[in-house]
Amino acid sequence: MSPLDPGATIGIVGTGQLGRMLAVAAAKLGFRVHTFGPEADPPAARVADAHIAAAYDDEASLRAFAAQVDAATYEFENIPPETVRILQDAGIPVRPGARILAVCQDRIAEKTFLRECGLTTAPFHAVDDLASLEAAARSLGGRGILKTRRFGYDGKGQARISAETDLAAAYEHCGQSPCVLEGFVDFDCEVSQVAARGVDGDMAFYDLPRNEHADGILRRSIVPAGVGTDIEAQARDLTAKVMEALDYVGVLAVEYFVHPDEGLIANEIAPRVHNTGHWTHEACMVGQFEQHIRAVAAWPLGNPARHSNAIMTNLIGAEANDWLRLTVQADLSVTLYGKAEARPGRKMGHTVALSERSDS
Amino acid sequence: MSPLDPGATIGIVGTGQLGRMLAVAAAKLGFRVHTFGPEADPPAARVADAHIAAAYDDEASLRAFAAQVDAATYEFENIPPETVRILQDAGIPVRPGARILAVCQDRIAEKTFLRECGLTTAPFHAVDDLASLEAAARSLGGRGILKTRRFGYDGKGQARISAETDLAAAYEHCGQSPCVLEGFVDFDCEVSQVAARGVDGDMAFYDLPRNEHADGILRRSIVPAGVGTDIEAQARDLTAKVMEALDYVGVLAVEYFVHPDEGLIANEIAPRVHNTGHWTHEACMVGQFEQHIRAVAAWPLGNPARHSNAIMTNLIGAEANDWLRLTVQADLSVTLYGKAEARPGRKMGHTVALSERSDS
Repeated sequence: MSPLDPGATIGIVGTGQLGRMLAVAAAKLGFRVHTFGPEADPPAARVADAHIAAAYDDEASLRAFAAQVDAATYEFENIPPETVRILQDAGIPVRPGARILAVCQDRIAEKTFLRECGLTTAPFHAVDDLASLEAAARSLGGRGILKTRRFGYDGKGQARISAETDLAAAYEHCGQSPCVLEGFVDFDCEVSQVAARGVDGDMAFYDLPRNEHADGILRRSIVPAGVGTDIEAQARDLTAKVMEALDYVGVLAVEYFVHPDEGLIANEIAPRVHNTGHWTHEACMVGQFEQHIRAVAAWPLGNPARHSNAIMTNLIGAEANDWLRLTVQADLSVTLYGKAEARPGRKMGHTVALSERSDS
Repeated sequence: MSPLDPGATIGIVGTGQLGRMLAVAAAKLGFRVHTFGPEADPPAARVADAHIAAAYDDEASLRAFAAQVDAATYEFENIPPETVRILQDAGIPVRPGARILAVCQDRIAEKTFLRECGLTTAPFHAVDDLASLEAAARSLGGRGILKTRRFGYDGKGQARISAETDLAAAYEHCGQSPCVLEGFVDFDCEVSQVAARGVDGDMAFYDLPRNEHADGILRRSIVPAGVGTDIEAQARDLTAKVMEALDYVGVLAVEYFVHPDEGLIANEIAPRVHNTGHWTHEACMVGQFEQHIRAVAAWPLGNPARHSNAIMTNLIGAEANDWLRLTVQADLSVTLYGKAEARPGRKMGHTVALSERSDS
């Protein structure tokens, strides 16, 4: 696994804002980027050298893509594992690989894996029909969050359950598909460990952000999180276990609840650069996007040290229309994703406010 | 001159590393970028949405380019002023405009303009033949630097003159073209003021770097320059005069010699983002590339404040082959330009080392 030379071509599967920021980071290191995804004119393709517009399961197009690139990665975890296998069969290293997709695409597989790694998760029960939902709700004291097992993000495919909830309606809301009922966790706050592992097994950890959500969508990430050095160290240790168990290569994020007594309770894994790590681009020596590209290219990892405090705020839906006011704020770095339509709930951009560094 | 909406298309004429870094900065703000230049596959085109490969004086291609973009800029000062006029005639705002090109493309026009603005320059004499070179050398005490009036950069088209110099050979070295003989200036160091002016006349100034050259090529830029607050203030004042006299829009750099008694002596103007400003991308809230795009898009200027000290080092020729060793240095941000061939003297990339901020 010798490092790719600058001038080599990195393939990115998926073409939203994460792919766009990865493409720009790859260009900084001298790489060419080719993108692959179903849209004809997506945000990432506009900063890439070439783009193949095809479905994720279009095998002929994937083979054509493989013929163009020297290594590949993906920007989100809901692509078919088969996509990765087709690229690998064509002789292209894909980092991270297919195994983490199987883990992350099923909430029960994910929580089971986290527990096998020695992490604590919320209590959970598989829900396959209304009867198992009723049993699960009883066993969790009548309260919890019902989530589809697969393909949920940004709060979609979720329903809160309490004593008053019509369970049949909640199950209907989740499409009557296989679900998981998760017990509520008492927590002081949510943090996330954005970390990287290189092909040589080296690891790098960013400082924890404290994450605030609204309507199931990330609103702000604040660094330092103010949770203390013990929690910071625990997050690094637990996340290292996850990465090592997977022989993971690339950037990954694990979301944790900070419990007043039990410490960190793992919520979920994202096998990619993460919205809660966007601040690293502005506030760190080597941000998460470049860090991921370094790992994909089998380069040594970069320095994740933070030179500033940061507050990252998502611009959601019509909030991005306020760009002109945002750009005149002296302490804000504004990033807009180039999406045409500001649909409600859609992530359109983000801002990062920097201030003088203080420790956690 | 209302601001361009994100999603608009910015045209960049010229496709080297400066165009490449400008294109990436434009993408961060949500813009599309189209590039224009004579090469088929240049560095900037690989991070742009579209590229027209045509000569700078190809009027039909320039008109086609103008039909695609909402505003345009250029990455270097040796394009024909006619290129700018063709785009302007097609109704496209070009920022900065054509006037600064006429000033910067002729060393005598440039020095004359600087003096008209009230700045001090080195003594100089026009050289149009061997006789005028001999007269000029005599009047400067036998010492000076002979430079072609037009199209010189990175020490090309230059010859040092001393009492022992064969003047005919030196003139031959400069192609027997129209030249200028500049007197030597005693100086403590060279600094440069990278600054920006917006469509509304607002200005922003980066802290001065101290610049070190080798073989006529920039080697390092060091911030803070350590020249004191009076020199920093003088550089801002003088550069403001230059920008106002030109009704300039965009980022510009003025190189200055710091004279032990006379303060700042202006050397030359670069009407563009500048090699001595590359550190601003890593060390400032809004770096020179985004700053220039903001000005071109008629957006408010961003905050040029510096959060760190920085040392920018150019990677010249084969030095860039050392990328693997450079990428493991914890305090270095590495940028490679994606140029195929590491010819001697060619700028292939640069590094920026950051450290804790201290004042000038």
